[in-house]
Amino acid sequence: MSETKIIDPWGSSKIENYKHVFSKFGLKEFESYNIINNYLFNRKIIIAQRDFDKIEQCIQNKKPFSQLTGIASSGSYHLGHKLDIDFYLIFKKLGAKSKFVISDIDAYISREDYKVPNLDKSKEYALDNLMDLLALGVDKDDIYLQSNQKPQYYTLSYEISKKITENMFRAIYGHSDYGKLGSVLLQIADILHIQLPNEFGKSPTITGIGIEQDPHARITRDISKRCNYDFETPSFFYFQHQSGLKEGKKMSSSEPDTAIFLNDTSDEVKRKINKSFTGGRITLEEQKEKGGQPQICKIYEIFKFHNADDEFLNQTFNKCKNGELLCGECKKNCVSFLNKFLKEHQNKKEKFKQTALEIINK
Amino acid sequence: MSETKIIDPWGSSKIENYKHVFSKFGLKEFESYNIINNYLFNRKIIIAQRDFDKIEQCIQNKKPFSQLTGIASSGSYHLGHKLDIDFYLIFKKLGAKSKFVISDIDAYISREDYKVPNLDKSKEYALDNLMDLLALGVDKDDIYLQSNQKPQYYTLSYEISKKITENMFRAIYGHSDYGKLGSVLLQIADILHIQLPNEFGKSPTITGIGIEQDPHARITRDISKRCNYDFETPSFFYFQHQSGLKEGKKMSSSEPDTAIFLNDTSDEVKRKINKSFTGGRITLEEQKEKGGQPQICKIYEIFKFHNADDEFLNQTFNKCKNGELLCGECKKNCVSFLNKFLKEHQNKKEKFKQTALEIINK
Repeated sequence: MSETKIIDPWGSSKIENYKHVFSKFGLKEFESYNIINNYLFNRKIIIAQRDFDKIEQCIQNKKPFSQLTGIASSGSYHLGHKLDIDFYLIFKKLGAKSKFVISDIDAYISREDYKVPNLDKSKEYALDNLMDLLALGVDKDDIYLQSNQKPQYYTLSYEISKKITENMFRAIYGHSDYGKLGSVLLQIADILHIQLPNEFGKSPTITGIGIEQDPHARITRDISKRCNYDFETPSFFYFQHQSGLKEGKKMSSSEPDTAIFLNDTSDEVKRKINKSFTGGRITLEEQKEKGGQPQICKIYEIFKFHNADDEFLNQTFNKCKNGELLCGECKKNCVSFLNKFLKEHQNKKEKFKQTALEIINK
Repeated sequence: MSETKIIDPWGSSKIENYKHVFSKFGLKEFESYNIINNYLFNRKIIIAQRDFDKIEQCIQNKKPFSQLTGIASSGSYHLGHKLDIDFYLIFKKLGAKSKFVISDIDAYISREDYKVPNLDKSKEYALDNLMDLLALGVDKDDIYLQSNQKPQYYTLSYEISKKITENMFRAIYGHSDYGKLGSVLLQIADILHIQLPNEFGKSPTITGIGIEQDPHARITRDISKRCNYDFETPSFFYFQHQSGLKEGKKMSSSEPDTAIFLNDTSDEVKRKINKSFTGGRITLEEQKEKGGQPQICKIYEIFKFHNADDEFLNQTFNKCKNGELLCGECKKNCVSFLNKFLKEHQNKKEKFKQTALEIINK
């Protein structure tokens, strides 16, 4: 089985060869960077799409469209999750009727027990995740938990079970694991149910995902055409994942030192940033002479994904390249940038505990 | 694959060799006929059990126990369904905290589209089924639809998905059909969820099923021991199915002339009974001489399963055996017995339409 025949959305490998995957699976390059003036668009963090034209037209013609985004509650949020949420907030601002799902059932049933031993554990994570979401500006009325939905949502997920054969599932995912099947049924229902008449109704919908989630996108689009409901085929955009702090690693909740978590203390941030991989040279002399390599630097990547200040980013890039800015100083800048953001965020977050509890116990 | 290696709960074949199946799958003979003085117990319609001792002890010691019974809404109810409901009402009377599920999601996802093309169709059947249930005396507060449940019920069904492997499912059912898997997840959740703390709580539970449903019983009992909840292993009793009106056939919704439906008109009943298979001899002379064969007669079977009058049943048996009662007269008795019951039932049923609609739209 070749690397690109099956994309494994539950795996942790980083997909390096984007373009090859694009052509293999029929993804199109993303080109609609001018729909909003936002640093994540200007910096081309989105790399691919399926049917994004429909969404662009809705935005341009002020026609209704909807979005569904979600994250499984299988741990604390890190900066990688913040990116999902940033995109969610951008499309909300662009006019999308929006729902954000905390996939707590998914978190339990699609993961090994040692990661999420039971639903109580994923609800514990959900509470913390909810506080992050609210503090980052997600509207409380737009958030739901998979375990706390209307009957029609679950009913739809079971109706979908009739539309998937084992062969189809194996062809897409390479296995027939029933827990993961369950999580796929719920994920499809998450995206499709927002088009039900008593939700947002039929309309183009947009969901932003990492490229390794494309199997879910493909099966969701396929099912949307074969349901007993009149659904618009969902659109997707695919964004680059921020890589981990260590060389060649993805940010991963199960390897805490690969990521900055929204719960990290200022000391943890300092420690992790100081240890993280940069584009610096072996000796100071070499770096002053040849300059650094921001294009492979994890510190530069943090700024690129999270610091909206274009001037600062450009300066950092240029000063690094010409050997003026050394890694020590740059890391110091990064620590203070992150700790300023995290301090404010964590202060805000505490105030949302009550609201978060209300959403969970609703 | 031998006939008894895999029992197919979705098949329509009648299982003839009960005892062989018992020993193969570890069922025990039912012996607790004295727990109630009721014609269905006196006539030994229940033939097997798993863990019924627990239930008998609860009844004798007036300790709490619960029951869950259900029927898929895939057509109109016939006399075979009435038997399920009769048993349900007996255990309710014996003190069981009771829930009756109308399996409308199951009806759609586990059946071919030509039988139940969509959920709307199974809800249409559900309305008619509900009116029957209410008219037969099932308490409206005890009934729920699968598509109209609390989130915790669906969540439990998905938690169960993690506990079943494809190999396990194949070993029990002989296939890995995802629609049928979905229906199994819901059926397990139906039986187990009544033990959740905010339902009836942990207690012995009883469910009455036909012997061909034993695969569901086995997987439910297995899962109950491996869930993240403290469940008592569910008990089951197995009753004989009333056979179809034609020789060698099961009562089947898809072959209307094999069954008397609770919606049948008096003319339909007359026509079906007159056409049905009896234990009569080829000639009148032969029958007067040798007597009839009530033990293979469909008319006698109707009386055995539905006429509580023991004296009438014994007389019918004896008069048939000694050639005194001929098939024509016996069929006339049966038509008038059924039509009296159905007329009363259908009159009652109409009055429950509003209540039935309320349950569906709750």
